Amino acid sequence: MIPTPYLLFLGDAPDQLAAKVAQGIKDWRPENAVGQFRLPGCGADVGLDDMTLEAAKAAGAQTLVIGVANRGGVISQAWKEVLIQALEMGFDLASGLHNLLRDENDLVAAAKVNGRTLHDVRIPSVAYPIANGVKRTGKRCLAVGTDCSVGKMYTGLAMDAEMRKRGLKSTFRPTGQTGILITGGGVPLDAVVADFMAGAVEYLTPDNDADHWDHIEGQGSLYHVSYSGVTMALVHGGQPDALVLSHEPTRKHMRGLPDYQQPSLEDLRDTALAMARVANPACQVIGISVNTQHLSEDEANAYLKEVEDRMGLPTVDPFRHGAGRLVDALEAL
Amino acid sequence: MIPTPYLLFLGDAPDQLAAKVAQGIKDWRPENAVGQFRLPGCGADVGLDDMTLEAAKAAGAQTLVIGVANRGGVISQAWKEVLIQALEMGFDLASGLHNLLRDENDLVAAAKVNGRTLHDVRIPSVAYPIANGVKRTGKRCLAVGTDCSVGKMYTGLAMDAEMRKRGLKSTFRPTGQTGILITGGGVPLDAVVADFMAGAVEYLTPDNDADHWDHIEGQGSLYHVSYSGVTMALVHGGQPDALVLSHEPTRKHMRGLPDYQQPSLEDLRDTALAMARVANPACQVIGISVNTQHLSEDEANAYLKEVEDRMGLPTVDPFRHGAGRLVDALEAL
Repeated sequence: MIPTPYLLFLGDAPDQLAAKVAQGIKDWRPENAVGQFRLPGCGADVGLDDMTLEAAKAAGAQTLVIGVANRGGVISQAWKEVLIQALEMGFDLASGLHNLLRDENDLVAAAKVNGRTLHDVRIPSVAYPIANGVKRTGKRCLAVGTDCSVGKMYTGLAMDAEMRKRGLKSTFRPTGQTGILITGGGVPLDAVVADFMAGAVEYLTPDNDADHWDHIEGQGSLYHVSYSGVTMALVHGGQPDALVLSHEPTRKHMRGLPDYQQPSLEDLRDTALAMARVANPACQVIGISVNTQHLSEDEANAYLKEVEDRMGLPTVDPFRHGAGRLVDALEAL
Repeated sequence: MIPTPYLLFLGDAPDQLAAKVAQGIKDWRPENAVGQFRLPGCGADVGLDDMTLEAAKAAGAQTLVIGVANRGGVISQAWKEVLIQALEMGFDLASGLHNLLRDENDLVAAAKVNGRTLHDVRIPSVAYPIANGVKRTGKRCLAVGTDCSVGKMYTGLAMDAEMRKRGLKSTFRPTGQTGILITGGGVPLDAVVADFMAGAVEYLTPDNDADHWDHIEGQGSLYHVSYSGVTMALVHGGQPDALVLSHEPTRKHMRGLPDYQQPSLEDLRDTALAMARVANPACQVIGISVNTQHLSEDEANAYLKEVEDRMGLPTVDPFRHGAGRLVDALEAL
């Protein structure tokens, strides 16, 4: 686990989009962030107080999180002075960038001298077991997509937030670097060695109270040929009791694969449910989450109604309308 | 690629089963082995000439292959004298053991001094790409199993051998350490990082002549919750034109998973074919390979006939009866 709370480092982010990791932390775990740190010329602002390292330290911050993505995922030399000063002041550093903190000699040296830890959340830090398939206590929900990047993480975070708002037992279980930084822990599933993928998901979602729900962050798609193996490990390692189908209706083809069409929601339902029932015969598809960001409000509502009528399942865009109806469906199980 | 031909090191193997890697090389690629090397007390014999290192070198051997598995997959101290002498004489070393040659300091030092290479075939030696899903030329056949360890590798090797016997263009494409040692190259798929699994399979089975068949070694099972993600990467990365269903009819439960039943051949056919057609809409199931080693000849023949009548597909045990009918089915496609 990454020590919280954080100070969010926005660096010299050129625009708001480049700070989406920091924005995710602010949106979903505001209690995890005491403030933001911006360099001159920073074009992003996630709406937290601007703080010096000293002020953040005084406010209890334990980790400086690099909440910015830049071209190529590199650790900019322009950031180094602040990063090293943070280590000297007793902060850990955390990053989900492609280039690793641990490969920067100056950061490694400063961390060592000051007894701090560099958290590269893209790299597994645990020797995960091989999955044993043993039935676990507690409940698990997994979003499976017609494609990659259709809103599965958002759906899980929104359902978790809604459940906790209702006083229900719920935990979001991250499987990618953004989710790991948001919550402070998880499994970077796409970086796990093949034999241990399903075991890593079992490790992430252990036995729990009978009325507790894990919301497991989905990855890839059973229909995306580049990443379907990762998705399959989530379906089998996660032993989901509930599946949510996630979809983005304006895609012309599978993400990054111009020759591949998206499957229908019916095909996704049948395939994912059959595979999930290998590990958990009681699994049900409980609803549909649609990312309607490229539709107008009227178009979105018409599309959601059409899908709901056709599929006979609660169909919502959790960003527009909240995840209440999906949580209602979980509670009704 | 591992330089061939080999001298097969059987060491102090207690029995024949412990030498099954060496036996596989002898059975499937006899041209890859000039002889065998046994220590005093060795209980295995794969039927090749016993040779000294000197004699093997004179016969052209380039690599000493550790063709023996012992408890825990460790590199025995009792072997070290021979292994180091082999490096000094100009042999490479190759091993599929769990413990790695590269972690033995004395072997690393001797390899360095003598300019030799240590081939740990459990570890990927290539930075595989992410799969791009682009349609490749040539044909590919993949065996998919109702369970792990049901004879998928054997099926692929037998079909490849039969095709080459008929003068057809064919290559066996190994995805596990035994297959890699048999042929001298391949992808250790269970050790590849999740994001690159399907890309590794694409790399293994590149564009080829239109009438050339790759026989891709299968791994795991879509129904085995520990390893199904690896299988999925083979189904999508391999873009198979043909699937063979592999089955072992006497299993009481899925291998290593006492609470899981094997799927029916019908379920496997439908699931694997639907997933394969995502990557290759022309894919067909062409036959069934049954491992009947635990059945008598009469029981085996009755079982094969029953399955063939029920499924309407050529159904053989390639160990008992050869892979001829499976290759006939490929040729008829």
